[in-house]
Amino acid sequence: MREEQQMEKKSGTKHIHLDQVLPGQIEAKSFEMIGRELQEMGIELEPEKEPVVKRAIHASADFDYARNLVFSPGAVRAGLEALRKGCHIVTDTRMAWSGINKGRLSALGGEAFTFMSDEDVARAAEQAGSTRAAASMEKAAALYGAGGKLENTPCIFAVGNAPTALIRLYELVQEGKLRPALVIAMPVGFVNVVQSKELILTLEETPFIVAKGRKGGSNIAAAVCNALIYQA
Amino acid sequence: MREEQQMEKKSGTKHIHLDQVLPGQIEAKSFEMIGRELQEMGIELEPEKEPVVKRAIHASADFDYARNLVFSPGAVRAGLEALRKGCHIVTDTRMAWSGINKGRLSALGGEAFTFMSDEDVARAAEQAGSTRAAASMEKAAALYGAGGKLENTPCIFAVGNAPTALIRLYELVQEGKLRPALVIAMPVGFVNVVQSKELILTLEETPFIVAKGRKGGSNIAAAVCNALIYQA
Repeated sequence: MREEQQMEKKSGTKHIHLDQVLPGQIEAKSFEMIGRELQEMGIELEPEKEPVVKRAIHASADFDYARNLVFSPGAVRAGLEALRKGCHIVTDTRMAWSGINKGRLSALGGEAFTFMSDEDVARAAEQAGSTRAAASMEKAAALYGAGGKLENTPCIFAVGNAPTALIRLYELVQEGKLRPALVIAMPVGFVNVVQSKELILTLEETPFIVAKGRKGGSNIAAAVCNALIYQA
Repeated sequence: MREEQQMEKKSGTKHIHLDQVLPGQIEAKSFEMIGRELQEMGIELEPEKEPVVKRAIHASADFDYARNLVFSPGAVRAGLEALRKGCHIVTDTRMAWSGINKGRLSALGGEAFTFMSDEDVARAAEQAGSTRAAASMEKAAALYGAGGKLENTPCIFAVGNAPTALIRLYELVQEGKLRPALVIAMPVGFVNVVQSKELILTLEETPFIVAKGRKGGSNIAAAVCNALIYQA
């Protein structure tokens, strides 16, 4: 039932049909397909959440994200407001950092950082017997928290890998040392991942977007950041 | 039924139980859990494929990878041999590049590259009306193909995002311009993704690991690379 013109590639006896979609239209076409399939699945998304959910599905081809992304009330609005003020984004991995569209972020006056590979973070983690991910959140708190050099710059935290980062972030918020503009909580995996995200879900004054359960990842964290950046 | 000592965190009225796992043991513990759940699902993996499949699941918490990763005969062996010879890895995204453990790769004498953001690649793509991803594969062919500066360096291609990169890679192989040591074919998404991977599955003399279907991603491509690097 495809309406697109098709191209054929021949390899031995095998024929492959490719949809002819111009490079600039691949993303729009993908989002259209995701929208149609969500509809077929009977899933209706709130308008505010739709671009975020669709971009998470776009990054993973995993429709579970239509059900497991949990938004605190007004989370998207809070993220967009921060981005329009030129906020920073701090991530826990180089991979998530790489996936964030830094050109578009910078056009909004923002910047993205990860402190994971910093030498002072490695030292702090070793001294504390914790992880570099947790220590990188301490470093962020020293910068963006009360009395920090960047305390007036709003900051979104995008955690795509380490539950230890998310747990430390939760503690720093509870201790009043950090007020994130938004927490994007997307660790993936098996050890303390579910629990670390449950902690974030208990936060009452901090806007959050959480991938409930085991799934998530740096790619999903970056996708959620980009969904907000493209709207802001 | 958890045997680990547990820690409690209190937030309002909510208690969260965290498994006490030392930072250095989180990965081993995760792999143990993945192995147990695969067993419970009745899935038995061939020993050669097991570390690759488990690491893909570890990166995504998605057990679909136990079923959708397709290996050409001897693909893992081919990858390990190339890595032991100090091969290069070329990826189609900065994100996949970021996820590859370049310290461990360099200990084997190898290096990882992505040409996606190179200016000559952007120019070539614009001139050809194709994508930068496709043009980045042309650049790789000029380097690693017959007559190229690096023609004697084995090269693994890890494609985590762009079907256009994979299609161009397929064509370059068919045209005899490139002989990859291994193709890790993991584009994710909706437009031409499935088809591009089907093309790779038709290659007869090129070792491949393919994530059949829509799923994949830069994170999965990097995970497969790392699974091989850690064994080599």
